[in-house]
Amino acid sequence: MPESRPFVSLATDFGAAYTAICAGVVYTVAPAANVLVLSDEITPFGVREGAMLLRQALPYLPAGVHVGIVDPGVGTSRRPVAIETGRGDVLVGPDNGLLAPAADALGGAVRAHALENPAYRLPAVSASFHGRDIFSPAAGHLAAGVDLADFGPPVEPLPLDVPSPLAGDGELTAPVLYTDRFGSVILGAGPDDLTAAFGPLPRGTPLDVVWGAPAPGSARATFEETFGSVAPGEPLVWIDSSGRLGLAVNQGSAAEVLGLAGAESVTLRRA
Amino acid sequence: MPESRPFVSLATDFGAAYTAICAGVVYTVAPAANVLVLSDEITPFGVREGAMLLRQALPYLPAGVHVGIVDPGVGTSRRPVAIETGRGDVLVGPDNGLLAPAADALGGAVRAHALENPAYRLPAVSASFHGRDIFSPAAGHLAAGVDLADFGPPVEPLPLDVPSPLAGDGELTAPVLYTDRFGSVILGAGPDDLTAAFGPLPRGTPLDVVWGAPAPGSARATFEETFGSVAPGEPLVWIDSSGRLGLAVNQGSAAEVLGLAGAESVTLRRA
Amino acid sequence: MPESRPFVSLATDFGAAYTAICAGVVYTVAPAANVLVLSDEITPFGVREGAMLLRQALPYLPAGVHVGIVDPGVGTSRRPVAIETGRGDVLVGPDNGLLAPAADALGGAVRAHALENPAYRLPAVSASFHGRDIFSPAAGHLAAGVDLADFGPPVEPLPLDVPSPLAGDGELTAPVLYTDRFGSVILGAGPDDLTAAFGPLPRGTPLDVVWGAPAPGSARATFEETFGSVAPGEPLVWIDSSGRLGLAVNQGSAAEVLGLAGAESVTLRRA
Repeated sequence: MPESRPFVSLATDFGAAYTAICAGVVYTVAPAANVLVLSDEITPFGVREGAMLLRQALPYLPAGVHVGIVDPGVGTSRRPVAIETGRGDVLVGPDNGLLAPAADALGGAVRAHALENPAYRLPAVSASFHGRDIFSPAAGHLAAGVDLADFGPPVEPLPLDVPSPLAGDGELTAPVLYTDRFGSVILGAGPDDLTAAFGPLPRGTPLDVVWGAPAPGSARATFEETFGSVAPGEPLVWIDSSGRLGLAVNQGSAAEVLGLAGAESVTLRRA
Repeated sequence: MPESRPFVSLATDFGAAYTAICAGVVYTVAPAANVLVLSDEITPFGVREGAMLLRQALPYLPAGVHVGIVDPGVGTSRRPVAIETGRGDVLVGPDNGLLAPAADALGGAVRAHALENPAYRLPAVSASFHGRDIFSPAAGHLAAGVDLADFGPPVEPLPLDVPSPLAGDGELTAPVLYTDRFGSVILGAGPDDLTAAFGPLPRGTPLDVVWGAPAPGSARATFEETFGSVAPGEPLVWIDSSGRLGLAVNQGSAAEVLGLAGAESVTLRRA
Repeated sequence: MPESRPFVSLATDFGAAYTAICAGVVYTVAPAANVLVLSDEITPFGVREGAMLLRQALPYLPAGVHVGIVDPGVGTSRRPVAIETGRGDVLVGPDNGLLAPAADALGGAVRAHALENPAYRLPAVSASFHGRDIFSPAAGHLAAGVDLADFGPPVEPLPLDVPSPLAGDGELTAPVLYTDRFGSVILGAGPDDLTAAFGPLPRGTPLDVVWGAPAPGSARATFEETFGSVAPGEPLVWIDSSGRLGLAVNQGSAAEVLGLAGAESVTLRRA
């Protein structure tokens, strides 16, 4: 029955072809699987961006085996790991914090095991393509019903390293998490942080936005619910669909229009 | 039986990850579905380009549920809509003209309904991601067999707003519809318009091509059946695989080589 | 049973939308198929790059029907072809050498036939989109069980035209095959060529790397097993996961950092 196809997703910084090779390995091990490429275009080595994507996306995907690979440490001693979640997913990838926020969003990590059993790897493991040789075969075997504990010893996965937002009196400083495809800049802060800094904030309130290196600058944006509430080309601060604060330009790219590319954090003040 | 998998396609300007989230929502609602991403790289806010893509592509896809999302008006009062076609498809997306040419190409719109029933939306609908919260769940429920009429009141979908080609005596002016991946510029005119302007036009006829702002220019191109009929690097006017007039450069990008980027329309004259 | 879904892959230089149209045609002909897009982002007209991708990737995909389309000669007299391999795959595409290295990697070409039978093409064949009109319907019919011999007369497929590496005494010159997504430059040479030029080469050996037009330059790189063996930003020569020699920069783009873009070949010398 198609209804029983085990669901597998892949999110990588590999580009189309290498990610599709991973999908091919999953299908070779688990021919009945339904494999979805969640993304093959995470910014190379962007662990934080990948972690935010997985946390944002996986709650909307069916429970299943979800592979995430952004792996600057491939070929070093960092561990390959699989994490079972409270919702019943298994997250597969490098143990570098990439999977931790998604595990939290899916009911928390129930148990985790290192991927060490050579029976569930490809016969030859390369130094630089663990996605193909370790993570994808593991995902296939998990989708085919192998228990997590058969892969290796239990481990305690590492957390993701992200700075916290800083809410002062009438001022909020938040880390830049990533820039989305539309050029909107998504911040590591939510509505609660906004309230902590400003109290209840009515729609239409003007805010000064300030950022530092590599191209320091500032802008005035209004706090709005939807892009359409400001004129095309005008900036706004809004809460994105996953509950995070963002800086956008209606029908334009905030990163380009405002010159925010590369900024590590942003400070908002009541104008 | 796999043969009975309901077919769902997605075409968006969201990029890979957000489009895959939509696919995930479809699979969550309709686990037996076969979801194909038709495109996740439509130019952001390019309603006309998206409409041309859907009209060109959907006749070659299996009959099914086809989601198209290019939605500059998300968060405003524009309606979400589903349109049943003469071929038996259901087209799902914003009611901004995006779906209209495809509906025409698939046997015409038989009936259309607004997507208002909260039972077929995600529990929380965000202001900026209706693809995930309204269109994808609708597609899943349609794929799972829910009738169109259960989604909301009948509506009359809006047409797409595109200028018509202008055929004079020995001169044809046509709107630029979009630039394809190879840099070929596709025009809103076909063989009939060519005949109306020039009479029967033999292969090998030289034509003067002229365009205006933002970078006015001109070129001489020959009217040919195939790219290979001109030398590499040489321009040609040809009829593309969907019956539209185009301006190309053999083994090169017409948009770059000729400097056509951003032109709104092109005029052809017998040289 | 989902396990019996015939497997079809697609690798093209078409971009997302045109490749998805091909997938749609396959699904229309063979609704039970499992279609994987291996790549839609091969460099336009990059036959050599596409051939290397197919050779590298297909051994990791399930046996099935694999379509490869990089086709500068579309619309000319080059033949459409299907090649059966020793592993039991059928490779489908233009007869321009694109498929030959992959056929070798999959147990060799067992038999090949031209795709001429109009019964297995779309009713109207365009001059410029054989992917949609000839190759994809062929793939669908092959996936649905039609025998290769029913498509047309037997043919002898053309080989791929690639220069051989040149190993001298303490010097190795190798063609650049392609640049991967991370900016690493992959060469048409392997460990045996390295040994032929240098004898046994210990990890950590410094090498001088020299290249010519369009932007001649040189660099010193060390021969290492993994990226992590050199500091971030430092160049290395390594053997990639498919056994080919490559030039990379740890956590960076060798093509950009070293200025190698467009180089046709690279020479390595013991420093």
